[in-house]
Amino acid sequence: MRGVVSAKLTLEYDGTEFAGWAAQPGLRTVQGELERALATVLRRPQVPVTVAGRTDAGVHAWAQVASHDGEPASPRALNALLPADVAVRASEAVAPGFDARRDATSRAYCYRVLTRRERGAFERGRALWWPHPLDRAALDACAAALVGEHDFTAFTPTETDHVRFERVVLAAAWRARGDVLEFWIEADAFMRAMNRVLVGTMLEVAGGRRTPGDFAALLDGAPRSRAGATAPPHGLYLAGVGYDGRRVLAEEPPTTIRRDA
Amino acid sequence: MRGVVSAKLTLEYDGTEFAGWAAQPGLRTVQGELERALATVLRRPQVPVTVAGRTDAGVHAWAQVASHDGEPASPRALNALLPADVAVRASEAVAPGFDARRDATSRAYCYRVLTRRERGAFERGRALWWPHPLDRAALDACAAALVGEHDFTAFTPTETDHVRFERVVLAAAWRARGDVLEFWIEADAFMRAMNRVLVGTMLEVAGGRRTPGDFAALLDGAPRSRAGATAPPHGLYLAGVGYDGRRVLAEEPPTTIRRDA
Repeated sequence: MRGVVSAKLTLEYDGTEFAGWAAQPGLRTVQGELERALATVLRRPQVPVTVAGRTDAGVHAWAQVASHDGEPASPRALNALLPADVAVRASEAVAPGFDARRDATSRAYCYRVLTRRERGAFERGRALWWPHPLDRAALDACAAALVGEHDFTAFTPTETDHVRFERVVLAAAWRARGDVLEFWIEADAFMRAMNRVLVGTMLEVAGGRRTPGDFAALLDGAPRSRAGATAPPHGLYLAGVGYDGRRVLAEEPPTTIRRDA
Repeated sequence: MRGVVSAKLTLEYDGTEFAGWAAQPGLRTVQGELERALATVLRRPQVPVTVAGRTDAGVHAWAQVASHDGEPASPRALNALLPADVAVRASEAVAPGFDARRDATSRAYCYRVLTRRERGAFERGRALWWPHPLDRAALDACAAALVGEHDFTAFTPTETDHVRFERVVLAAAWRARGDVLEFWIEADAFMRAMNRVLVGTMLEVAGGRRTPGDFAALLDGAPRSRAGATAPPHGLYLAGVGYDGRRVLAEEPPTTIRRDA
């Protein structure tokens, strides 16, 4: 069947116990677990997958997208083989040659910050606990400055494989949900650690150590040394991937995407 | 200081790894962990606590309330000693003789049901996975029937220490949050396993095996044998406790209570 059809997989994972997405010898990775389950279900020696957004160790996904050639496997059969911290949400036949990474036109991420003074019992590993004062208006100003095309050199490590540092941010907003403050962003693509440096720097603005104007001034190709700390991975979620120009984050509150994704 | 002041504690816990609230020799319980931390921080040989709502093994709490005599301990000091799956949210001085259980005028619970067809990666142990069709209108009819005073004999085990089976339900409603369906209920008090039998029976109504009318007919002292299965503990959360007649669930959407609690 290979060559006449491809498969598109949508998956969710808790990144806590994974050494990230990408398969690495001797490490527990999402790609490694998924490819092993696919090979068993599809009875093929190997089923290499391509992914829309490689996530680092500790980073979560609500709706990651991966693709492979050949017929799709049944989500239920895959979930029976996969460990409890990764689940296939959908597996569908698509046009041959579909490539989850190359064909993606946008990616959306959410970073979750637990803002209460005392640590919680449920959000460990799932949100950044930040018991410090946060200037919400300053955060909103930073998010507004992000929308549009910018040079994000300041927001990725200096040692890099990236050759182009411009990215187009389609949407960016902070939203409160109870005592969790969420940063939502959608862009055509992201560089390594970009979201975590954006959030780490915005938290410095929200604490009064920088101004929103300082933040905006970093969006024009400033060096990495001028941006802030890299926020830890466990607050970050790949929230969805857009294809054919369809956006993940609609105008409505972004909470709706978890239902549809 | 004992006798001139009492302390009111508000706490959150993930019930997964606890053998319930109540201290039992040789078992890991929330009360056991809390009393040990209190004794250390307050430098007293024992600090017996009273609790508003005893929860069974696997049941969670967003805002459990407990009390003890004497000065309150600092939440931060307690959280430094408590394990990661329990956290003190507040600890405050109250009038001497305050009793978290006896003085409570209402309790609110939430039961969370993950309604998607495939299992998830984040909700294991935190919501009941229910990949079956659910008639939402039937659930709403059941919730409406619950409000008011009823005899809940059908919804607690036959072997019981309870002597009175009437309870007053102040509010009851199903709400969708993404693909999680939540049942919220507030009553003056609950009997053992009552919420879990209510939910288990309502899920049978939602699946078409009973009608909302059948469900309503159980609220008048029917025997336990006529109600449905006991839903598992891991979907249940003690959401808050009301004092002095102040309700936990306001008219507004119940999501707000997690922020204020």
